[in-house]
Amino acid sequence: MRNAPIGFMDSGVGGLTILKEVQRLLPTEKTVYLGDQQRLPYGPRSPREVLTFTRQIATFLQRHDQIKLLVLACNTATAAALPALQQSLTIPVVGVIAPGARAAVQTTKTHQIGVIATAGTVKSQAYQRTITAQDPRNTVVSLACPELVQLAEANDLTSPHAQRVVADKLAPLQGTQIDTLVLGCTHFPLLRQVIQRVLGPGVQLVDPGTATANMVTALLDYWNLANSTGQPQPQATYYTTGDVTTFDRAANLWLDTAPVHAQAISLATLTQLDMEGE
Amino acid sequence: MRNAPIGFMDSGVGGLTILKEVQRLLPTEKTVYLGDQQRLPYGPRSPREVLTFTRQIATFLQRHDQIKLLVLACNTATAAALPALQQSLTIPVVGVIAPGARAAVQTTKTHQIGVIATAGTVKSQAYQRTITAQDPRNTVVSLACPELVQLAEANDLTSPHAQRVVADKLAPLQGTQIDTLVLGCTHFPLLRQVIQRVLGPGVQLVDPGTATANMVTALLDYWNLANSTGQPQPQATYYTTGDVTTFDRAANLWLDTAPVHAQAISLATLTQLDMEGE
Repeated sequence: MRNAPIGFMDSGVGGLTILKEVQRLLPTEKTVYLGDQQRLPYGPRSPREVLTFTRQIATFLQRHDQIKLLVLACNTATAAALPALQQSLTIPVVGVIAPGARAAVQTTKTHQIGVIATAGTVKSQAYQRTITAQDPRNTVVSLACPELVQLAEANDLTSPHAQRVVADKLAPLQGTQIDTLVLGCTHFPLLRQVIQRVLGPGVQLVDPGTATANMVTALLDYWNLANSTGQPQPQATYYTTGDVTTFDRAANLWLDTAPVHAQAISLATLTQLDMEGE
Repeated sequence: MRNAPIGFMDSGVGGLTILKEVQRLLPTEKTVYLGDQQRLPYGPRSPREVLTFTRQIATFLQRHDQIKLLVLACNTATAAALPALQQSLTIPVVGVIAPGARAAVQTTKTHQIGVIATAGTVKSQAYQRTITAQDPRNTVVSLACPELVQLAEANDLTSPHAQRVVADKLAPLQGTQIDTLVLGCTHFPLLRQVIQRVLGPGVQLVDPGTATANMVTALLDYWNLANSTGQPQPQATYYTTGDVTTFDRAANLWLDTAPVHAQAISLATLTQLDMEGE
């Protein structure tokens, strides 16, 4: 069990930002990542559909790779599926929202926190609920920015067009008193530079990735699940339901590890698992 | 449950260094601390005896203060009692050794890690086992330094005598290649300055307190146990089995919160709980 990999799922390549942080903090752990690019984006889908997809991927990673811990490296999947999966799976399941909320709560001085995310995450109010549960003094301003996901997936991170889109979409935050902004979609840290420029130095950007990687570390250590035979740079496996070349290009750009060669996984394989049930 | 306090136990006042870190990171959580000063030091006692004492304190804090999570803010108690308490209690129990080991593993470059601790902790080999389980490339040099506990409890932290004792006791580490030293007793961070001067700038000192507070935060958030009605600076309760005045003096020196007024708790109360069994 200890020597089994840590599993990661995301709708696309955004979750690689969290995988990278875990690989950095836990260099002797095996990892396996599945990007569900063929069904991307998850943001506009119903919570029920996102739960179904997430459950399929969890089942696949458990059966095929015997993962010891699952990271929902996707805010939309965390909002829609975390409690259900924590209840139904026998391994720990970590989402990005609780750690991201905590990082924001520990950062803010004004207790005015902004959250940018997909439509699905904003509609779930998961960040709002979690942030005010962690400290009721906080108020939360949420903003759906699906257009930023498209920029990141297209790797358009710094062009004048990207800057215009970001400035446009974040305009509603300009009149608020927020001093902290949660990058509530795993794609958004890639646009960090442009977002910071648009909002100015008075707003601290919070990337839930680091906090999530710290929670993964704490849970592994709490349950004594660290890989005791680990060598540095151990096995990392990548799957995509989409185009392998596109995935590899993005992954190699964003991760600075060994070259990534993803394996294609058909949707039929995943949906079949769903038919069988858990 | 969420609005219940987080419990802390230690043989004395050393664990206040961890309480302080948790109060800083989680300012809206209630806390309750018990220092078993009458039976201090735990270091030279048998693991069986330390387990008995720790179980008594856990039972008291659960019954009397309905704690939602217990921190063994004492390395000796963690080494002797953590697995047993995690098995027998229904609330999460966090020790200091796994987080302290992880912090050291993430700090070292040479993979030569030193640990200074009480005789009990060193004898248990808990740090050695945990550090090499987290990354088998590491080797660990352990050194029992009970004399440093006495300095800290006497609040003799910077005198020429304190410097001589520290230099003397750490002499065996001078010939080694360690680049990281775990302060493996909650008293030792108080002597940090002197220890750093003796070992020089080539050795990074690791205080498990910060890492332990981070694990507490991660577990609270993972189980959705954060105090959702919390106000800043909420209730903090202190008990000691020893002299209240001595406890208050040390606590007020080390914590920079509201004045501490500990309550006396008799050993009879604790040992009676033990008789009743769990």
